[in-house]
Amino acid sequence: MNRIEQYIRDIQDFPKNGILFKDIAPLLQDHKGLSACLSELKAMVPDGQIDKVIGIESRGFLFGTMLAKRLQSGFVLARKPGKLPYKTIAQSYALEYGEDAIEMHIDAIQKGDRVLVHDDVLATGGTAQAVCKLVETLGGEVVQCNFIMELKALNGREKLLDYDVQCVLSY
Amino acid sequence: MNRIEQYIRDIQDFPKNGILFKDIAPLLQDHKGLSACLSELKAMVPDGQIDKVIGIESRGFLFGTMLAKRLQSGFVLARKPGKLPYKTIAQSYALEYGEDAIEMHIDAIQKGDRVLVHDDVLATGGTAQAVCKLVETLGGEVVQCNFIMELKALNGREKLLDYDVQCVLSY
Repeated sequence: MNRIEQYIRDIQDFPKNGILFKDIAPLLQDHKGLSACLSELKAMVPDGQIDKVIGIESRGFLFGTMLAKRLQSGFVLARKPGKLPYKTIAQSYALEYGEDAIEMHIDAIQKGDRVLVHDDVLATGGTAQAVCKLVETLGGEVVQCNFIMELKALNGREKLLDYDVQCVLSY
Repeated sequence: MNRIEQYIRDIQDFPKNGILFKDIAPLLQDHKGLSACLSELKAMVPDGQIDKVIGIESRGFLFGTMLAKRLQSGFVLARKPGKLPYKTIAQSYALEYGEDAIEMHIDAIQKGDRVLVHDDVLATGGTAQAVCKLVETLGGEVVQCNFIMELKALNGREKLLDYDVQCVLSY
């Protein structure tokens, strides 16, 4: 077992029946776990300056800011519609039924910024793909998308074929 | 002007008419700002081991995890009802009209834990007070409540008279 995996708690039927939820709360609650996971995420990042780390609402904020601190980068919030106070740019993406959207501030990325996109879980990949499009619309370059874990059955990597995708854990 | 204050952006009429919102996005986006704010928050924390830092959903997650990393503490999420997957304990608090509640996992705090409660803004203080009650119900000790900024007109400190309250900025 990977040293991070021991801190992940399985929750049956959350958020709805038939879903096995992977809870990262025990990983965060133990400083050894938090620190080890941050080190593994950091070790995946390619050499070279990272100008911005983007954290996807809201569990992507958790390790996203720590990664930004460690990489000496700025941190950018990607949020659900209506949550960001300043002028925003939005990108919609498909859900199983219907669609949703994700927003960033229009001044979050500068032309030429080298950007790391981070979230806790890579599921269908729709949100991360939408965030990558926003980065590119603003003139940035996505250097990597990294995640604590991927849920392989949901094929999220297929939406992110244009990018370097790294995950600490794979289920 | 405080070196942190230069990174705070005023947004008129967000989230609704008549509210002047203090946006921390520019502070996060600039590594110098992020790093300086973290240092100021860290400098406020009393000596002695901090076992857990609690971040209040969702902007409290941003500096909360970085503080936990810096203080060599575990990190705990305080979330709105229904968001945490494991067994929870809840505390309700009054709003201007009606009430809301905040939850933590029942295993988030161990008896005797020395705890730092963190959020971005101290407004009415209701949420932070509810989180402090949860900490105490679980047998922990609130060592400090700290915030990036307080909105003095809302008198949040009156709800937190039992605690050490520290804020980097005051409006």
